[in-house]
Amino acid sequence: MIDIQRSPSSKLENTNFDNLLFGKVFTDHMMECDYIDGEWQKPVIKPYGPLSLDPSARVFHYGQAVFEGMKAYKDKDDRIWLFRPDENFKRINRSGKRMAIPEFPKEYFFEGLEELLKLDKDWIKKGFGNSLYIRPFVIATEAGVSASAANEYKFMIICSPAQAYYSGEVRVKFSEKFSRAADGGVGFAKAAGNYGAQFYPTDLANEEGFQQIIWTDANTHEYLEEAGTMNIFFRIGDKLVTAPISDRILDGVTRKSVITLAEEYNIDLEVRRVSVQEIVEAAEKGELKEMFGSGTATVINPIVGFGHKGKKFDLPKLEDSYAKFFKDKLMKIQYNEAEDKFGWRYEVK
Amino acid sequence: MIDIQRSPSSKLENTNFDNLLFGKVFTDHMMECDYIDGEWQKPVIKPYGPLSLDPSARVFHYGQAVFEGMKAYKDKDDRIWLFRPDENFKRINRSGKRMAIPEFPKEYFFEGLEELLKLDKDWIKKGFGNSLYIRPFVIATEAGVSASAANEYKFMIICSPAQAYYSGEVRVKFSEKFSRAADGGVGFAKAAGNYGAQFYPTDLANEEGFQQIIWTDANTHEYLEEAGTMNIFFRIGDKLVTAPISDRILDGVTRKSVITLAEEYNIDLEVRRVSVQEIVEAAEKGELKEMFGSGTATVINPIVGFGHKGKKFDLPKLEDSYAKFFKDKLMKIQYNEAEDKFGWRYEVK
Repeated sequence: MIDIQRSPSSKLENTNFDNLLFGKVFTDHMMECDYIDGEWQKPVIKPYGPLSLDPSARVFHYGQAVFEGMKAYKDKDDRIWLFRPDENFKRINRSGKRMAIPEFPKEYFFEGLEELLKLDKDWIKKGFGNSLYIRPFVIATEAGVSASAANEYKFMIICSPAQAYYSGEVRVKFSEKFSRAADGGVGFAKAAGNYGAQFYPTDLANEEGFQQIIWTDANTHEYLEEAGTMNIFFRIGDKLVTAPISDRILDGVTRKSVITLAEEYNIDLEVRRVSVQEIVEAAEKGELKEMFGSGTATVINPIVGFGHKGKKFDLPKLEDSYAKFFKDKLMKIQYNEAEDKFGWRYEVK
Repeated sequence: MIDIQRSPSSKLENTNFDNLLFGKVFTDHMMECDYIDGEWQKPVIKPYGPLSLDPSARVFHYGQAVFEGMKAYKDKDDRIWLFRPDENFKRINRSGKRMAIPEFPKEYFFEGLEELLKLDKDWIKKGFGNSLYIRPFVIATEAGVSASAANEYKFMIICSPAQAYYSGEVRVKFSEKFSRAADGGVGFAKAAGNYGAQFYPTDLANEEGFQQIIWTDANTHEYLEEAGTMNIFFRIGDKLVTAPISDRILDGVTRKSVITLAEEYNIDLEVRRVSVQEIVEAAEKGELKEMFGSGTATVINPIVGFGHKGKKFDLPKLEDSYAKFFKDKLMKIQYNEAEDKFGWRYEVK
């Protein structure tokens, strides 16, 4: 079904796997599928290389683009696994619908992805924490600067080897002024423009000593939503709380897996609105034990402190951290080292 | 200062100027300027042609991109004019700042623009309504999918010949559910993602018989803001009202010119919040005489009716229309056929 053009050479031997910057090195091949004349054409896998696009292509002017983030893992027996890829497939089409991008066919998504991973399987390194980061995305390619949905698109998958992700100690700032998404907007979608819009406020937060922003609702800035690349969990006493998904908050795959695991392991977890005031008060009383983010790139990312209205709060260092617990449980399932009770693993063979 | 590479041939003779689709045909040359190693490099004017970009370029994934829209006009004596180009220059840097894009130098902007227009001057046709649409834009070109501001960018100007713009009768829908921008977001910027996010709601409105959407505030949907590609004016009795600019609403050049002209010609104009209820009630009482949009592409676009909560309203056809008045005044200034009292014209020579 898929046309495969093999790369005449490999960059593999020239790649230093001990010193990978996230998302900077790509594998030997990529998948491409064009939408022309009202339908998705036959997908092609070909050597990784530059795209040639007209300067008036819609994606450059109107940000009509969506993406996904996934990972492939290699177990001790060299078997290759994906984690809940159906969720990513469904979500790229949910995001696409909101951005007026035509639905991508399931069979193309999975055949393309699996053929690509088999071709570039030597780029997936064994070892807990090593993985291949997979980036499916769709861009509007039609030439012409009229401000309406394009008639031509390109779906692609590119892959980048990733090491165990350690981003240093993460402190977050609760947003007081800037916003990520509006009710009735595109915050729930992995739409390209949602991410670029966060760079400037995040740069300002960096200057104040915070690595990331926890976005609050645009109306009142009283409720905590998500971190832009992660969903957020708060542990007050021994109870976890996280915001419900909405049209402003991404329906994270790792987030929903944490919720399922919490239930499985009898960890008290509430999905409800989380107010800034509640978290600040809990921190002041010493009841805020943990905060952590969940996302594909980071799996679970512990947060060591937060800032709000000029005050800074440090979180305690716990022995029995929920963050550590969920990260271990999730990674063992992802690397085929634990029972897969919920059918989350998907073997590429 | 600028490196000019002339196109060996011209597409001019093969272009049918009697049948131009907006933004589909481009002139023989384009301007390009790259930001590398912390600075904007020497600008180049070269033959119009495709860009080659890595598939991991930030613009494809995170929508880190901004643009402007301008027009060049040719008068009866073949002199070429721009309209308030300083405003576009300042705004592309205001937009860029919010999108974490480095400031573009004024001298590069104007020298590049003027050299490009002189080179492609035969693409600017005389005649009231004919113009050359100019699209400056900046895209994040750095390869790599980490979600942070890029270190490499490309500034470009491309140009497309445009005829008198008649978009048919325009009916608008007042948005009840979808939103364009959040407080604290990027709505005031000409950021790429603001536009792609409007395509789906606009497609749905099209199916109901409306050509465009008037966006309302995301919190309550009770106040009318802008149309996404136009600012909006309402005429109640003989008074004009338009929404104030904010971090959700674009500071339109045509909008502010209309406000100045209204003052000049003693037309009563209020810049204040405009509620949906006020406009619906005025329409029901027969006091809503006109609605029109203002923007570079359309200049002034009369609106013939609107819809809200399932009801449709038609506006009267006026002899002494404000829309017609402002369009005529603006175009006469733009085409060097009237006195330029406010110093809005800028000659390219």
